[in-house]
Amino acid sequence: MSKHRVKFLPHERSAEVEDGTILLRAAMDAGVHINASCGGEGVCGKCRVIIEEGAVEGGASERLKAEDLEKGYRLACRAAVKEDTMVRVPVESDIDASVLNLQATPRKTAHIKTVDFEELKEAGLFIPPMEKIYLELPEPNPQDHLPDVTRLVSFLNLQHDEHRLVVDLPVIRKIPELLREENFRVTATLARPVRKDGQTHIINVQPGDTTGQNYAVAVDIGTTTVYGQLIDLNTGTVMSEYGEFNGQISYGEDVITRLMYAEKPGGLEKLQQVVVGTINKIIDKLVSRASIDCDAISSMAVAGNTTMTQLFLRVNPRYIRRSPYVPAATIYPPIRANDLGIELPEHVTALVYPQVSSYVGGDIVAGIMGSRMYQSEELILYLDIGTNAEVVVGNKDWFACAACSAGPALEGGGIEFGMRAAKGAIEDFSIDPVTLEPMNLTIGNMRPKGICGSGLITIVANLFELGIIDNSGKYNQDLDTPRIRERDGVWEYVLAWQDNTQIDRDITLSEIDIENLIRAKGAIYSGCQTLLEEVGLTIQDLDRIYLAGGFGSFVDLEKAMTIGLLPEMDPNKITFFGNASLMGARMAALTNRLRRDVVEVTKMMTNFELSETPSYMDHYVAALFLPHTDLALFPKLKSRFKNRTAAQKG
Amino acid sequence: MSKHRVKFLPHERSAEVEDGTILLRAAMDAGVHINASCGGEGVCGKCRVIIEEGAVEGGASERLKAEDLEKGYRLACRAAVKEDTMVRVPVESDIDASVLNLQATPRKTAHIKTVDFEELKEAGLFIPPMEKIYLELPEPNPQDHLPDVTRLVSFLNLQHDEHRLVVDLPVIRKIPELLREENFRVTATLARPVRKDGQTHIINVQPGDTTGQNYAVAVDIGTTTVYGQLIDLNTGTVMSEYGEFNGQISYGEDVITRLMYAEKPGGLEKLQQVVVGTINKIIDKLVSRASIDCDAISSMAVAGNTTMTQLFLRVNPRYIRRSPYVPAATIYPPIRANDLGIELPEHVTALVYPQVSSYVGGDIVAGIMGSRMYQSEELILYLDIGTNAEVVVGNKDWFACAACSAGPALEGGGIEFGMRAAKGAIEDFSIDPVTLEPMNLTIGNMRPKGICGSGLITIVANLFELGIIDNSGKYNQDLDTPRIRERDGVWEYVLAWQDNTQIDRDITLSEIDIENLIRAKGAIYSGCQTLLEEVGLTIQDLDRIYLAGGFGSFVDLEKAMTIGLLPEMDPNKITFFGNASLMGARMAALTNRLRRDVVEVTKMMTNFELSETPSYMDHYVAALFLPHTDLALFPKLKSRFKNRTAAQKG
Repeated sequence: MSKHRVKFLPHERSAEVEDGTILLRAAMDAGVHINASCGGEGVCGKCRVIIEEGAVEGGASERLKAEDLEKGYRLACRAAVKEDTMVRVPVESDIDASVLNLQATPRKTAHIKTVDFEELKEAGLFIPPMEKIYLELPEPNPQDHLPDVTRLVSFLNLQHDEHRLVVDLPVIRKIPELLREENFRVTATLARPVRKDGQTHIINVQPGDTTGQNYAVAVDIGTTTVYGQLIDLNTGTVMSEYGEFNGQISYGEDVITRLMYAEKPGGLEKLQQVVVGTINKIIDKLVSRASIDCDAISSMAVAGNTTMTQLFLRVNPRYIRRSPYVPAATIYPPIRANDLGIELPEHVTALVYPQVSSYVGGDIVAGIMGSRMYQSEELILYLDIGTNAEVVVGNKDWFACAACSAGPALEGGGIEFGMRAAKGAIEDFSIDPVTLEPMNLTIGNMRPKGICGSGLITIVANLFELGIIDNSGKYNQDLDTPRIRERDGVWEYVLAWQDNTQIDRDITLSEIDIENLIRAKGAIYSGCQTLLEEVGLTIQDLDRIYLAGGFGSFVDLEKAMTIGLLPEMDPNKITFFGNASLMGARMAALTNRLRRDVVEVTKMMTNFELSETPSYMDHYVAALFLPHTDLALFPKLKSRFKNRTAAQKG
Repeated sequence: MSKHRVKFLPHERSAEVEDGTILLRAAMDAGVHINASCGGEGVCGKCRVIIEEGAVEGGASERLKAEDLEKGYRLACRAAVKEDTMVRVPVESDIDASVLNLQATPRKTAHIKTVDFEELKEAGLFIPPMEKIYLELPEPNPQDHLPDVTRLVSFLNLQHDEHRLVVDLPVIRKIPELLREENFRVTATLARPVRKDGQTHIINVQPGDTTGQNYAVAVDIGTTTVYGQLIDLNTGTVMSEYGEFNGQISYGEDVITRLMYAEKPGGLEKLQQVVVGTINKIIDKLVSRASIDCDAISSMAVAGNTTMTQLFLRVNPRYIRRSPYVPAATIYPPIRANDLGIELPEHVTALVYPQVSSYVGGDIVAGIMGSRMYQSEELILYLDIGTNAEVVVGNKDWFACAACSAGPALEGGGIEFGMRAAKGAIEDFSIDPVTLEPMNLTIGNMRPKGICGSGLITIVANLFELGIIDNSGKYNQDLDTPRIRERDGVWEYVLAWQDNTQIDRDITLSEIDIENLIRAKGAIYSGCQTLLEEVGLTIQDLDRIYLAGGFGSFVDLEKAMTIGLLPEMDPNKITFFGNASLMGARMAALTNRLRRDVVEVTKMMTNFELSETPSYMDHYVAALFLPHTDLALFPKLKSRFKNRTAAQKG
């Protein structure tokens, strides 16, 4: 996609944005505030800008008079960038103009990294796990009456130098007819051993030459959502991708309620069936979207947290939630997908990522493998943020990990107007430092319904940076704006008046909401600190941060540092891997090298139970401020605060 | 059991017999003829003998007058030997007395050999495949929260020096509760790898110390009968044994009809279910008879012919009966018994003996392994005689094998009064050389119903030896006895008059019956000859014969040589292994050494299709005489004939 440069006047700030981006988003990226509380539906009509150079698409509105339209006025929330553009933001007061320099820094999100098959090959990491070989076997006759399987195996021995071959029973069952279907011309699928001295299994035989069709399914079983990918094993390409809510949600929103349900009679069996049902639905979509023959699927790789993995495999998860929090196993042997109820050909084996502990599971291990953190020379902090935030720190030589119980605030839970990152969620925000009017950006550019995690972080960071809330998250009650008010004894800021929302109330952010966010970010930050301290390191020793999880791609990194969720670091040193668990599953399906390495990596991972680590509570309490009790940990913020105080005084 | 010596007068011949043996059997063993056509039910009253020394149990009868009883007369067919005894056979004519020396030699059957666990150990062949280890694991606590499986595996690593352990999913599923049942004191069952570099699987974990209970099931799937044994893996003892007719009989009497049924829609599935049903019935009996806990069964070993094996595994057998007679496979991987429908704990894996060809199957391979022929320095001929006779020749360095289509005569099929070796079958026989009156011995000592295989051989051998039939199996029509007669244009000998039988007809043996026997024995003998010739050897090169199959333990070896079924050889060099297939299955369950060796042995076995071997037909035609066209092959018989002719002339 082409990119365009948008320059905002009088700020003299620019952003480079994708074709079609709305002007409001471009302003946010450039660090320019435009009043906009309706989230982009053109309802409030406050986001008037003047197009001075270039042209935009849309942005006309009945709220703009014909003469204004002619002058170049547009609503920033309805105007899409189609070329390089110069935009003037009307500055309605001198005061506004004077605070132009107080604006937040331009928005910075993490660089998104995906796996590259070619890169894998170049790095010498590509050891194909499933190979197809086309064979033209001699036909039997009275002088050559070798058994069918022996005929196949001997031919592979002699003509293809293949040894230590094992032929699985499903193949033996169908081989007599298969060989004769196209006159003993067949394609054999060879599943390679993970260890060099292992055996190669012939898992499938198909009539004719089908070497061009060789696929795998990768699945990430999340507590909330299950994602699948269909992968072409010949090219590494993702043929199709699909996600579904995990059907288990009906039996419990989170891990703990699922674990409780699993203890009921028949509960474990039910949860297993339900998640398998979800996976089957996904596989069905993947296959039909890619229009492939299901029999051409050779393998399946699965990653999920410890609870999801045990439920998927129907392994009693009773002791996961009971101190001392013991999971059943770390490593699971390969399992026939059919045996689990997965609707794939019977030759397909499911490879399941190993677990480290009850709360650091296969999704994290998959992320470590998929991101190739396990080969890094640099010291990396790997963070997967959700209800439970998992933290891994280490490099190619060692790993320490821990799970922090962050609570659901970062996913919009426990926040009065919190919601998941769905349409209508305020996901980005800026505030006019003088008028205290908001600029809300919502997912789908529509009137707001609530606030999602990334929005929450940005709002709190903005409020804090401008001194609207103090470092304990309390509002400055002296500010002169109707947006800051007391309701039922609790102070709050009105993000959007009822008229501008999709709901029947004002959307607000209260001190209680902020407190919940602070607790969540405090748990994560202090978890990282504790883990590092346990291995004799500090936050300052980190070379790089890897972010994983649904969270991350939309979070403004600087804002996350401002509130003390992330350690202060050059945003270029922060890499986002998105669904790293799915990526790890895909990589495991693509190369045996990963399957070999993962066992060692899992053994290397030392797990710390934070609740059993005495220093954790001290670190946690110290982190219950914005950004932290110890401002020395956030030197850039400290220096911005100094400058701001100086500017305000001056 | 104690043995007693029985001496017969005036013959001056003795036999050593088990306590309780009836006198008629003792006479047969001693080579003494006593007229007896009712088989031992005391009906004909012809078998009167006088007890001169010692005492017998029973033998009184209303057919004996009181004064005769007092004189010591008893019916030999009703009198059991209880101590050393001297018995006089009343000689009713001078003629009888003069032919005393023409009697056949005493009966000789093959030495029966069984496996000895201690012998196995001494020979260095004992590599336990399934070991149980009792473990007292440390309990988890906040400082030690290893996952359950990791706890078990680490303990085995550190305390028992066990490495390369794999824990199977069924174990992982139940391990959380199992460990806690008796405070982390458990017994783990370790399935050892066949190859040294393989992995050890932990297939079961039980609470407490169950090391004393470790069992295996061995099964021989015969076309007609399925036999099972429950084996104590700690001691090698057979705990219980049970046999059942193969439920597949309802779908076809023999292999060919089963193969045809398997081609019908759903036929293969049906046959698989039915034989599994039979096996489940057997396992149920084995377990209840031995009163063991089913969960203590660690493994299962199965042997059967190629068709039985493919049907058991539900492997398409379509090409077994179609030229060029190609089976699906030789070697089958271990298969979860549950997956086949076998009602054993889910950790039990079925080891299935490999096949050589369509008609030399796992039962034969099992026999080769179980008899340890594969370690022999001597050149051995291994013969498994049934409807199909399988022949293997070789020693520790090589093997050649073939199947001869013998037809069912040796199992009583195609013989007018033929029957299986069941109660009422004439199984042994002698004939008075002068009166031509028979001495019938039946299974169960009751009036005859028919003739079984071993009886048939003895009858024909006796008739031939005395010149009652010639070398083409035709009766001497000049003999003066009502027992030799023509019926519907076919000559026959009356073995028992209707009154003395359990049926409503005379029991006879016709020239057609004899012809069928000659064809069967000719097929087997010429099969052996052809096979030996193909490898550059002759019958004379053989050091030893191993007999296997239901046939064998009751066959009089000298008689079998007389008719030319077996090559002439010192009977001490013939060993009988009974159900060698079951023995092989049992051995495979007892030691991994066999499982390792069997793959090499199977590869060493060169299969010859007799129908494709040009010389076979010549050998076959030459063998269609008693004992053979070439009498030089039977030197002892030739010399007996010479002496007899001389004696008759003299």
